[in-house]
Amino acid sequence: MNPDNWTCPLPLRDYPNVVLGHGGGGKLSAELVEHLFLPAFRNDALAALGDAAIVPPVAGRLALTTDCYVVRPLFFPGGCIGDLAVNGTVNDLAVSGARPLYLTAGFILEEGLPLAALGDIVARMAAAARAAGVAIVTGDTKVVERGHGDGCFVTTAGVGAVPDGLTLGPERARPGDAVVVSGAIGNHGIAIMSVREGLEFETIIASDTAPLNGLVNEMLAACPNVRVMRDPTRGGVAATLNEIAGRSKVGIEIDEACLPIDPQVWAACELLGLDPLMVANEGKLVAVVPPSDADRLVAAMREHPFGARAAVIGTVSDQHAGMVVARTAVGGRRVVTLPVGEQLPRIC
Amino acid sequence: MNPDNWTCPLPLRDYPNVVLGHGGGGKLSAELVEHLFLPAFRNDALAALGDAAIVPPVAGRLALTTDCYVVRPLFFPGGCIGDLAVNGTVNDLAVSGARPLYLTAGFILEEGLPLAALGDIVARMAAAARAAGVAIVTGDTKVVERGHGDGCFVTTAGVGAVPDGLTLGPERARPGDAVVVSGAIGNHGIAIMSVREGLEFETIIASDTAPLNGLVNEMLAACPNVRVMRDPTRGGVAATLNEIAGRSKVGIEIDEACLPIDPQVWAACELLGLDPLMVANEGKLVAVVPPSDADRLVAAMREHPFGARAAVIGTVSDQHAGMVVARTAVGGRRVVTLPVGEQLPRIC
Repeated sequence: MNPDNWTCPLPLRDYPNVVLGHGGGGKLSAELVEHLFLPAFRNDALAALGDAAIVPPVAGRLALTTDCYVVRPLFFPGGCIGDLAVNGTVNDLAVSGARPLYLTAGFILEEGLPLAALGDIVARMAAAARAAGVAIVTGDTKVVERGHGDGCFVTTAGVGAVPDGLTLGPERARPGDAVVVSGAIGNHGIAIMSVREGLEFETIIASDTAPLNGLVNEMLAACPNVRVMRDPTRGGVAATLNEIAGRSKVGIEIDEACLPIDPQVWAACELLGLDPLMVANEGKLVAVVPPSDADRLVAAMREHPFGARAAVIGTVSDQHAGMVVARTAVGGRRVVTLPVGEQLPRIC
Repeated sequence: MNPDNWTCPLPLRDYPNVVLGHGGGGKLSAELVEHLFLPAFRNDALAALGDAAIVPPVAGRLALTTDCYVVRPLFFPGGCIGDLAVNGTVNDLAVSGARPLYLTAGFILEEGLPLAALGDIVARMAAAARAAGVAIVTGDTKVVERGHGDGCFVTTAGVGAVPDGLTLGPERARPGDAVVVSGAIGNHGIAIMSVREGLEFETIIASDTAPLNGLVNEMLAACPNVRVMRDPTRGGVAATLNEIAGRSKVGIEIDEACLPIDPQVWAACELLGLDPLMVANEGKLVAVVPPSDADRLVAAMREHPFGARAAVIGTVSDQHAGMVVARTAVGGRRVVTLPVGEQLPRIC
């Protein structure tokens, strides 16, 4: 945490740190809402302060998602738990083909968290929501005793609208399809690990946390036949590809030489003995498209800042159904397995 | 926690307790979803296992809400954190006038939580969702290291549909209106406190956790002019009435002799020095209605099991705007203040 960056004005100086009463539903809770959450997230639905936020009718099917964020440390190069939580939920909606509309935010705070840190987290959530074009319309805050939490946990849920006729899903890959990734992989996981373990590299490796709904719009406009989109977060690209292979009952072959990976991420993975395919991403997506559409899709993605390094990394096969195989740089082949547990706990 | 009640079959015997990998997005996460969450919550939207659940279009305005649950202990007389989380979110939607439809569920687990306990929590969430007629369509699980959480935190979010033309809100109370409560107050808070503090009474005081959407339906059918509904959870009836008085810029006068309170809850409050008006409820609501509608509303509520002890407890006044005043049993008057912090931490 970098106190220099704590930007939210806090007329809550009687309590510089979070106390149990901030989650008690009384005056202290109300002050937190009035002076911290409302000014940051300001929108009409939130300002009504009902037990639920009321928003206008949404046309079409709804997409609903939720994610809990327990990343440690709370602030890291390229982001913090707040923008991560907003972008993560925006991305889960976007890769489902939905236009993200509304988010909810739940905070579980540990007694003693500096209110200014919470203010900064909330300010960055608000900025991320603005950047993604979504509104944070309702929320809740609970406080647990010191030693029964870990600073700040954030749970976001999101609602989006799915365009008529669009269906994406991990069960839709077909032999011959191309597998595309939107950019360099592994940056988020390595950013977290390097700050947590005190590793120093020549350049700071920053998290790739970003909202992907704009990129997804461009992709669907250029290529309405996209079959699958997923964001490879926990478990990395390896987990995502294994899921697609399993759900679609197909094999997937990827070419490691085609994987966009930043040199310093490569170096860190070698140093730490990590497989970059298993390292988490927070601003990337994997897509599967019919082979005839692959070039058009990649070209459209490269027009967007979050897809500038998009690349075809492999193909879907009718061999070895349910299995992901990588051609290695030296010409061998290896099976890319689903991680059993967790390479790195509390990555998001 | 009562292991005798742990009912969920768990073919996860290699890991009897939660390990970090259960939140890692790999095989262990997938097993938890397959063997624990899917069988309990089973529905089509969840079974698709997308990054987001896709549900059919919803007509009309949407209501969105979220709540974090950190109640301690996890299991208590009358309920557990799981049914509490479902009912709480159902009730936030219901008192906003919405028909609750879909819930999301986020779990932040502490390493070492018995998987069977999680199974029981999830089974009770599923039962509560069935009872309320809602579907839990998507979720997420994260695991934190031992000592960085507290067993299990649950965050639910909910989506409901608001009927055309219906508008409720704490700013809509008018002088002369009647203030109604749906039943005996204080049971949830006293149930939690007595089990936590090891207090013994002649009878076990159970939480009142219950879904109120059925009761709300009956209320709106009998009395479409209801102006305000709120569920008096944290901060109790005192916090709810103060909010209504403040937002509507009116005074509220209540008659303590009219408050439905169970004798053992009274006794516990006296013993513990608690004001029952400030004790949390999890299956009650407060409503404000035009005076001409009050009798009809109370009669309709009494037809419903969760409104059997509904009563008019006071009136809205044009005096002392923003303030709640109680006539005491001995004929005096006292100001009912908004609690500053928290009478009892982690009540929900």
